[in-house]
Amino acid sequence: MNVTKVTAFAPASVANVAIGFDILGFSVNALGDRVTLRRAPGGKVQVRAIRGVVEDLPLEAEKNTAGRALQALIESRKLPFGFEMEIDKGIPLASGLGGSAASAVAAVVAANALLEEPMTRIEMLVAAMEGEAVASGSRHADNISPSLFGGLVLTVGIDQPRVKQIPVPEHIHAVIVHPHLQVSTKQARAILSRTVNLSDFVWQTANLAGFISGCYTGDLDLIKASLEDVVIEKQRQALIPGFPEVRAAALARGALGCSISGAGPTLFALCLETDAPAVRAAMVSEFASRDIKTDHWIVPAQSGGAHVVSCE
Amino acid sequence: MNVTKVTAFAPASVANVAIGFDILGFSVNALGDRVTLRRAPGGKVQVRAIRGVVEDLPLEAEKNTAGRALQALIESRKLPFGFEMEIDKGIPLASGLGGSAASAVAAVVAANALLEEPMTRIEMLVAAMEGEAVASGSRHADNISPSLFGGLVLTVGIDQPRVKQIPVPEHIHAVIVHPHLQVSTKQARAILSRTVNLSDFVWQTANLAGFISGCYTGDLDLIKASLEDVVIEKQRQALIPGFPEVRAAALARGALGCSISGAGPTLFALCLETDAPAVRAAMVSEFASRDIKTDHWIVPAQSGGAHVVSCE
Repeated sequence: MNVTKVTAFAPASVANVAIGFDILGFSVNALGDRVTLRRAPGGKVQVRAIRGVVEDLPLEAEKNTAGRALQALIESRKLPFGFEMEIDKGIPLASGLGGSAASAVAAVVAANALLEEPMTRIEMLVAAMEGEAVASGSRHADNISPSLFGGLVLTVGIDQPRVKQIPVPEHIHAVIVHPHLQVSTKQARAILSRTVNLSDFVWQTANLAGFISGCYTGDLDLIKASLEDVVIEKQRQALIPGFPEVRAAALARGALGCSISGAGPTLFALCLETDAPAVRAAMVSEFASRDIKTDHWIVPAQSGGAHVVSCE
Repeated sequence: MNVTKVTAFAPASVANVAIGFDILGFSVNALGDRVTLRRAPGGKVQVRAIRGVVEDLPLEAEKNTAGRALQALIESRKLPFGFEMEIDKGIPLASGLGGSAASAVAAVVAANALLEEPMTRIEMLVAAMEGEAVASGSRHADNISPSLFGGLVLTVGIDQPRVKQIPVPEHIHAVIVHPHLQVSTKQARAILSRTVNLSDFVWQTANLAGFISGCYTGDLDLIKASLEDVVIEKQRQALIPGFPEVRAAALARGALGCSISGAGPTLFALCLETDAPAVRAAMVSEFASRDIKTDHWIVPAQSGGAHVVSCE
């Protein structure tokens, strides 16, 4: 085993995807985090540096999603060594683009390349979920799974997670618009009612099942009819000034659906590739009319997951 | 147009399928209802006879699911004629096997053969849903759609329903066990809480998405892990003596899942064809140990929908 230093990249991700709260997400590899690891003596994790678009993250391993994920890995594998870590953040803090998940995933993928016996992908998922729990207060995989596996990913179960990559019709693209507002995941979760009306439950489950069936069968009419969140969005939209108008503008330009990415404030719209530029322009313009600056990307709805980018 | 008398058959169905409350169901064509129609003068529906395993149903068309479905059709199509109807019930009353839906579907399918311009399947669905509302108190399609279309069917939306037939792996069969108890749909709906805990909501949606993905990809492990109702079953099982033991017996014999068919008291288990006889025997035996008699069937999980059986 000659590898002593590994860098891995893990993409951003859009969690929830309107109809799959806490269970569904898709990767967005236009941006992501990089983690560089070296083996270190003793079963500890030392965070040497955090650079990039976010710098004020905790350097204590326990409080850092990547650090905690590595500690979980050291514990579960009973590793006789630890890690020195540098994190290069490409995903803005509290943007709703899965930055904490991406750091945890990149750390686990890099660590995997330093192990004598590589992990299964589910093992990596479980370790990364432990890291994510530091940021969001509970274990869930709706950002972790797409960042790790790539594409649109469903996760069923927490203790014994099962993962399914769901095919998305190729000509569907995602417009991602990040308004320069900050929403913390904990705040966005705290705002949610602890119960769902039975009628909303039925409606949302119909939409979820319709969206997934539409993806498997390439049924754009069904995808468009189903891609509507009737449970979470109405509770969280108050955190995003102009949300109803931005969403309406996206739909008016032909988007199949438009909702909040994860806990927000980033929004996403799914649309045909040919409609994507007009959808993006309409969304950006609505935010601009409220003096809210944005970053924005157009990406295929299906992109790759985390991977090692260099080994020494 | 020379057809003057038409008989149509519509199969029984298992609604909800554990994880698709009010949106999912599969047809069970081992039993079903037959409706015979003749054109009659004036835009009225006259119920001439109700025969078979159920006889004490209302003869007033307005109160009869098949009669109401035909009235809805007469109104929407502005038909200049009405129908004389005879109903042969093959589905026991209040069994949870979609008897009221099957009568409505058979009536609409028979009526279709007497029209100058045939209906689309969605038009038939909408008319039959109007009939079903008489029995259950609200419009929903989880029995109507599978009885009409056949197979495992998802319905998204009520006012503009969209229907998707979901493929089930061929070697999956359904064990259907009808204990001789009566549960009214209205009673079974009244028992339900009007809200769902957010954590149960997430769990159930994960299971729904997992089950559907498992069906599209033939993933038996995922189907088995996902086919569990964490929302409705725990509220309704009190209506069915011995439910937990019957379910446990089915799972112990290898069933992929076992839950309540529609509003109950019929139970269904999905299992591999080779396991079906043992699963059935275990379920029947558990009921028998409580002095509860049963009828029972083993059927492919995928079977045909409603159809015309004779024309004169």
